[in-house]
Amino acid sequence: MPLTDLTLAELREFRPDVAEPADFDAFWTRTLEESRAAGGEATLTPATTPVNQLVVEDLTFPGFNGEPIRAWVTRPRTDSPLPAVIEYIGYNGGRGLPGERLQWAAAGYVHVLMDTRGQGSAYGGGGHTPDPHGSEGSVAGWMTKGISSPDTYYYRRVYTDGVRLVDAVRQFPFVDPDRISVTGGSQGGGISVAVAGLSGDVFAVMPDVPYLAHFQRAVELTPQLPFTEVTQYLSVHRDREDVVFNTLSYFDGVNFARRIKAPSLYSVALMDPIVLPSTVFASYNHVPAADKEIAVYKYNGHEGGQIHQWVRQTQWLAERL
Amino acid sequence: MPLTDLTLAELREFRPDVAEPADFDAFWTRTLEESRAAGGEATLTPATTPVNQLVVEDLTFPGFNGEPIRAWVTRPRTDSPLPAVIEYIGYNGGRGLPGERLQWAAAGYVHVLMDTRGQGSAYGGGGHTPDPHGSEGSVAGWMTKGISSPDTYYYRRVYTDGVRLVDAVRQFPFVDPDRISVTGGSQGGGISVAVAGLSGDVFAVMPDVPYLAHFQRAVELTPQLPFTEVTQYLSVHRDREDVVFNTLSYFDGVNFARRIKAPSLYSVALMDPIVLPSTVFASYNHVPAADKEIAVYKYNGHEGGQIHQWVRQTQWLAERL
Amino acid sequence: MPLTDLTLAELREFRPDVAEPADFDAFWTRTLEESRAAGGEATLTPATTPVNQLVVEDLTFPGFNGEPIRAWVTRPRTDSPLPAVIEYIGYNGGRGLPGERLQWAAAGYVHVLMDTRGQGSAYGGGGHTPDPHGSEGSVAGWMTKGISSPDTYYYRRVYTDGVRLVDAVRQFPFVDPDRISVTGGSQGGGISVAVAGLSGDVFAVMPDVPYLAHFQRAVELTPQLPFTEVTQYLSVHRDREDVVFNTLSYFDGVNFARRIKAPSLYSVALMDPIVLPSTVFASYNHVPAADKEIAVYKYNGHEGGQIHQWVRQTQWLAERL
Amino acid sequence: MPLTDLTLAELREFRPDVAEPADFDAFWTRTLEESRAAGGEATLTPATTPVNQLVVEDLTFPGFNGEPIRAWVTRPRTDSPLPAVIEYIGYNGGRGLPGERLQWAAAGYVHVLMDTRGQGSAYGGGGHTPDPHGSEGSVAGWMTKGISSPDTYYYRRVYTDGVRLVDAVRQFPFVDPDRISVTGGSQGGGISVAVAGLSGDVFAVMPDVPYLAHFQRAVELTPQLPFTEVTQYLSVHRDREDVVFNTLSYFDGVNFARRIKAPSLYSVALMDPIVLPSTVFASYNHVPAADKEIAVYKYNGHEGGQIHQWVRQTQWLAERL
Amino acid sequence: MPLTDLTLAELREFRPDVAEPADFDAFWTRTLEESRAAGGEATLTPATTPVNQLVVEDLTFPGFNGEPIRAWVTRPRTDSPLPAVIEYIGYNGGRGLPGERLQWAAAGYVHVLMDTRGQGSAYGGGGHTPDPHGSEGSVAGWMTKGISSPDTYYYRRVYTDGVRLVDAVRQFPFVDPDRISVTGGSQGGGISVAVAGLSGDVFAVMPDVPYLAHFQRAVELTPQLPFTEVTQYLSVHRDREDVVFNTLSYFDGVNFARRIKAPSLYSVALMDPIVLPSTVFASYNHVPAADKEIAVYKYNGHEGGQIHQWVRQTQWLAERL
Amino acid sequence: MPLTDLTLAELREFRPDVAEPADFDAFWTRTLEESRAAGGEATLTPATTPVNQLVVEDLTFPGFNGEPIRAWVTRPRTDSPLPAVIEYIGYNGGRGLPGERLQWAAAGYVHVLMDTRGQGSAYGGGGHTPDPHGSEGSVAGWMTKGISSPDTYYYRRVYTDGVRLVDAVRQFPFVDPDRISVTGGSQGGGISVAVAGLSGDVFAVMPDVPYLAHFQRAVELTPQLPFTEVTQYLSVHRDREDVVFNTLSYFDGVNFARRIKAPSLYSVALMDPIVLPSTVFASYNHVPAADKEIAVYKYNGHEGGQIHQWVRQTQWLAERL
Repeated sequence: MPLTDLTLAELREFRPDVAEPADFDAFWTRTLEESRAAGGEATLTPATTPVNQLVVEDLTFPGFNGEPIRAWVTRPRTDSPLPAVIEYIGYNGGRGLPGERLQWAAAGYVHVLMDTRGQGSAYGGGGHTPDPHGSEGSVAGWMTKGISSPDTYYYRRVYTDGVRLVDAVRQFPFVDPDRISVTGGSQGGGISVAVAGLSGDVFAVMPDVPYLAHFQRAVELTPQLPFTEVTQYLSVHRDREDVVFNTLSYFDGVNFARRIKAPSLYSVALMDPIVLPSTVFASYNHVPAADKEIAVYKYNGHEGGQIHQWVRQTQWLAERL
Repeated sequence: MPLTDLTLAELREFRPDVAEPADFDAFWTRTLEESRAAGGEATLTPATTPVNQLVVEDLTFPGFNGEPIRAWVTRPRTDSPLPAVIEYIGYNGGRGLPGERLQWAAAGYVHVLMDTRGQGSAYGGGGHTPDPHGSEGSVAGWMTKGISSPDTYYYRRVYTDGVRLVDAVRQFPFVDPDRISVTGGSQGGGISVAVAGLSGDVFAVMPDVPYLAHFQRAVELTPQLPFTEVTQYLSVHRDREDVVFNTLSYFDGVNFARRIKAPSLYSVALMDPIVLPSTVFASYNHVPAADKEIAVYKYNGHEGGQIHQWVRQTQWLAERL
Repeated sequence: MPLTDLTLAELREFRPDVAEPADFDAFWTRTLEESRAAGGEATLTPATTPVNQLVVEDLTFPGFNGEPIRAWVTRPRTDSPLPAVIEYIGYNGGRGLPGERLQWAAAGYVHVLMDTRGQGSAYGGGGHTPDPHGSEGSVAGWMTKGISSPDTYYYRRVYTDGVRLVDAVRQFPFVDPDRISVTGGSQGGGISVAVAGLSGDVFAVMPDVPYLAHFQRAVELTPQLPFTEVTQYLSVHRDREDVVFNTLSYFDGVNFARRIKAPSLYSVALMDPIVLPSTVFASYNHVPAADKEIAVYKYNGHEGGQIHQWVRQTQWLAERL
Repeated sequence: MPLTDLTLAELREFRPDVAEPADFDAFWTRTLEESRAAGGEATLTPATTPVNQLVVEDLTFPGFNGEPIRAWVTRPRTDSPLPAVIEYIGYNGGRGLPGERLQWAAAGYVHVLMDTRGQGSAYGGGGHTPDPHGSEGSVAGWMTKGISSPDTYYYRRVYTDGVRLVDAVRQFPFVDPDRISVTGGSQGGGISVAVAGLSGDVFAVMPDVPYLAHFQRAVELTPQLPFTEVTQYLSVHRDREDVVFNTLSYFDGVNFARRIKAPSLYSVALMDPIVLPSTVFASYNHVPAADKEIAVYKYNGHEGGQIHQWVRQTQWLAERL
Repeated sequence: MPLTDLTLAELREFRPDVAEPADFDAFWTRTLEESRAAGGEATLTPATTPVNQLVVEDLTFPGFNGEPIRAWVTRPRTDSPLPAVIEYIGYNGGRGLPGERLQWAAAGYVHVLMDTRGQGSAYGGGGHTPDPHGSEGSVAGWMTKGISSPDTYYYRRVYTDGVRLVDAVRQFPFVDPDRISVTGGSQGGGISVAVAGLSGDVFAVMPDVPYLAHFQRAVELTPQLPFTEVTQYLSVHRDREDVVFNTLSYFDGVNFARRIKAPSLYSVALMDPIVLPSTVFASYNHVPAADKEIAVYKYNGHEGGQIHQWVRQTQWLAERL
Repeated sequence: MPLTDLTLAELREFRPDVAEPADFDAFWTRTLEESRAAGGEATLTPATTPVNQLVVEDLTFPGFNGEPIRAWVTRPRTDSPLPAVIEYIGYNGGRGLPGERLQWAAAGYVHVLMDTRGQGSAYGGGGHTPDPHGSEGSVAGWMTKGISSPDTYYYRRVYTDGVRLVDAVRQFPFVDPDRISVTGGSQGGGISVAVAGLSGDVFAVMPDVPYLAHFQRAVELTPQLPFTEVTQYLSVHRDREDVVFNTLSYFDGVNFARRIKAPSLYSVALMDPIVLPSTVFASYNHVPAADKEIAVYKYNGHEGGQIHQWVRQTQWLAERL
């Protein structure tokens, strides 16, 4: 796989304007208020797992519209408040089985891994969270579910779930509420950018090869799934281009990045055919925070930095805690 | 593409038993009763189309749970009651634009083309019918939506829509209610088999390369989408095999075929990698009707007989009208 | 599939010079004169088809060198002269079975669908017209048949067939000879451009994703069949580049577009890997007619606008009739 | 690539009956008589080539219907009569440039490499022989050209060319007319089987992975081109199965193999996806000659034994000369 | 991906004989004796890793011929002797970074992850162990390195490394030397079978989708890498079949399985195109141990049971400890 | 396959700087001195081959470190000194069987075909030369063997073998030592460039589509194997970019091209996806020799000019001899 996008020098300067609706903030304020108003309780129960050197718990918390969302909490065997890292998952994946992802907890953090509603059946250990919302006609997948309106668009629910999880984690007695960071790869990176843009008080954001930014460019130039779900939708609904891009403007990572105040550590892979590097830099270059950096993996595809990036994240985060 | 399945001689004898739940009929009786009880009006409005030598109308009728389903009605410019042909659509397709499918009307039939809820964004002219039901975690696509239970499974709604369309068409003044046939290719063939099995009084059923039969074999042996959505689901949810196949047993074309009383004209393609010929014959060979035949396309893939089969259908149907 | 060519802004300005031989007009004048001199009768016989709401007839007319070419005529059940639309077919397709394409007739036009000599065995309903001319060594397919000379090149015969069909249709009593338009998709679009350039008096030309223009660019940059047949030929016959491009200059859609006087409605798809958008714009941008427009399908591949474009064509044509 | 067909034990016993028309011999006798009656002269001219340690000449000889066919003659620098090996070429290839194939001449044989009419533009050095016969509609390629009748089928001309080349070579003063063998790989192997079946007096036949035998099985089971050209033809011309297989029965390698009297050395590759091993054994197992053997390459695809098989051929042939 | 092999019922009975050389045991006894005689020290040093809830150490131990081999040791923060699980890695992978695989340690075991010499550059975190042995000509990869003789074959060194690691682990003060189990996926599964067959005293063996068994069948029928490296080798070295299979008979998992005395928990995936299920059952069905079972993943490819299988392994192992 | 790189006009001007280590010449002087000091005898023995019109001999000569390397010598049946052409082989190929490549000898040259150590098992007739050097972890293949240091890198040995073969050929009584040329395709072209840069006195160099130049660009942009082996290595060993490119700078064809004094005839193919044309021109454009030319195959992939280029080479060489 050769380079899939601009040269690195060009990428570093790539700071395109993308559409931002006038009521972007109002839309999200209303959305979060409504979901918070819906209430609901977060519950933690011990998970059944062979892991015994760490605590693993099954979390159900109220997400969008108060709907129950699942997550795994994995943490050291102590009740002293610790810094937390919330992780969101890549497209089509699920939270898997308890004890499946142990790195952050083994490094001394409370790790919370959020299930993505409706997804979780394509690979790995599986997901456990329904998305109790129907859709008008859509392409197979989640990228075009409810795309006729920002109100019904699938990612309105997912991003809100992500914010509501921060709300829930902040209440845990074993978490230091001032040191909650968010992270994730691909879709998980995109959610973490959105959450960091919407939750002004996260401690840090560490998105890897984040998906869901600069939709116009992504839809025109990405050769592989899942951005192409939108392309396919538009290839059939030839008269809905304006509707679609209006909806997407409420969910574009660039617009969330503009609102990030927390220290930010992005990563990007220059041979990535799924999340084009220019869409990552479009997001990163708009982050106003002074304390930001981006790890560039020049010879990797969408796998990005993998465990190398995790080590870098732990070092970067430790320097700030 | 070589032959994808058994030899023709073997296929003609392939009449496997598939699981049939004890409450199969009860389940469907209850399902149809509930949806009929939900009521709703069928409405016909003139369609905007360049076609002026035929009448084209936009139909909305109450489907599963009374939910509005769209269809196109295309028919000769006469109000005398005519025989009707209801057509269901292949996976991922939509009813398209008015005037897109003209053959049956041009041959003197009232043609009714049903949209498939939630689908219609993958190719062609597009669909226009929402599926207002969420789902637990599923594979991208429709094959595993709500698969945990026959009550929530996606095709419960689709098959019911298909039956309710027969109910609606029977009321049209320009239709001879005793001569309503059902047809369709691939998924549309599968729906037509189900509808024929559930609506005892359709005049004839003409499924082409019908999908959705003998799930166990299909899931194990089909190399291409969309049966593989189920395979993928089971590859992740490794502990749900029984649940999945229990649900599917309520939707297996073989079980509907066993209940068909109408004259039946199937078609099958022996080089089909999407609907394995053995699953078509499993359905066909169980049809108890004496008046049945199957057109065998020996050198075709999933496209089957195309216009050749349509000509054959018109001849076969004309002989019976 | 991402964008396959220049940006839309660049395409709108893309008006390259292509080689035009000094005797281009002389060559075609001679060619048409010789074939017209060869004479021959057009014959219409009723077609065997289930279609009974429209008239369907089997046409044989004298094409290149007077050789018999087949077509279907489909039209409303009236003998009053109507405007006609002649349609040419995409590469490798055939006219199919009678009654297979009904849209134009159902919208009130006389529709004439020309078989492409020698082709018609790759998909669909099949073709029925021989090409009684051998060839020197060539690549499998039609793009390099007789390519050593414009006199022997395959498309000399096909384009001439197209012009001669206009001659034939003009004689039909049920056609208004002043309102004969030409259309077609892909290869059919390329033929319609050539016919419009050669038949000064067609009423309108409506090529969709037209093939066969700007051969030099197409041969260098097109990733998929069938332009690559020429590439493959040149990869073997490494010393014949001049011969090949000299021949092709007599058949380049750009050179025909320069000669179009009729109102023109093109369409193009920006994600088309078979007919690069730049080759469509190279043709379109050279059309001197003031009354021209191009429908741009930004998210489609070679399927282009499909039924949407047909609706647009009917509206555009109706405004001019 | 795994095994593509039956096990070796099964293959050794695979001796199926294939259709043989009652007038098979009459058809070929008439064909050869007519072409011989058409006359024509074989001409040899020195070739322009860097090769100076062997003699290389350009041969034009009268083939089917007396039409000129090209070949290269390559031979040791002596005028004493030598044994000759005639080689036919694989599908889509051409005789290339003079001096391109030197092995047989370097081993002391007169080597004659026949161009295949119409082919020779897909790879390598190219071909130089026209096929001056048109065709009804066909699939791109040569497998379905003129397939409506044995009289017009493409391989009638090619096989006759092959036989007429034996006639021509027998007249060369530098050839021992009693020691002319035929060989070739793939299509070239198929031609050599046909020629050996038709020319009762060739000294030996050495077909490698020979194509063009047991058409029914090949068309049903071969996954790759070019047998699939016939499959594709039948997928469109759904009503022409009888016509097609009747024509092919006059050209089936099994029927020629039954008539071979010369010593025979076949080769076959068990992982060949282009010429299924069972079609090679179907031919080989029907050769009545007592002096026959088959080299089995168990782990090769269609490349077969390559230079290893050539060494084996030279040893086998030397033992018999 | 459909089923890639026999049916499950057939697989359960599939117990083929494979070649076993007369000096199999002598060969391995000599091999292990020589390497043990080469001596060398195992050294443990703390690893640099963010993981602080577990102990992670960098192990270098003497493998084949005393050559240094790397591994990671990951374990609970206690010095009391614990049961240990040695894990071998899949083809082309490396041990990665310290702290990359935490499951076994987090479940209370000493986990030792062996690098595979020469490999470790294809994906993931990388490997760190040279293979200081050259090779005669081979296919890219490791399957044919030194394949001319069992003495020089690559896997002689790798299997010996695996056995020598058991030797080393047995000396660790924090390991209970009577409760050392071996496991691994794919190639790692193959190594664990070999080690269990050679080290009579391992506590248990848990191979997942184990590679490297029944070479003759695997080489003939596997469609994908890396068994196909052997196929490719034989397709070139057409005269070395006997040499190759003689060498491989010393490394066939079936022959090691016959010698396993420890409790065995295999897993297999029925849609696996890389390790055909029949080759797994060929190994499993020959295990003489009474205490054995096999987890069958009916709808998975080569990923097999993943975390599900690990949970099953922990339960199975806990029952026996 | 479309153009894979810059336009021809751009390529002709493409003369990028690549890294050249300060001790480049010292490194190679030392390397060659050490290997020459290792001594060893070249031996020629008659080859067993059916070829009897030319002399074919089996050569073993001392290569890197005096290690035995194999080659075939093929030549006219005369003992008078003749000009010689040494040919190196493409990646993964071997020298094959004696008598497999005859062109140069048949044209009156002594032809010497060098085996590439360790390779020769991927296609064709096979190779016969071991590479008795192990490696640290590497990607399957040869591109990353020993890449941690120029001293251990695989191509240090191969290039040295190539130079040492010139040394050996110069001693043959049947060779004119002042007229030894080097050639080869792909990897063989890369070796010939290196040898011409290192052996100041070769008569001419004729590399075809030469591999192994401008590594930085090649690794970033080449879509297909084998340059991608380096890309894959760097995707795993994310921290070794400097080490890798430092090593490669000692082996970059551009640096050898700068040192070529002999007349040079390159060839390049503009649709080559394996060796990007820009990397060929990067090498060619740096050749300081006044007597140089490059054959451009505009429509070919990596096969380049094939026999056409050989004819051109013979003409070009004859003009200079």
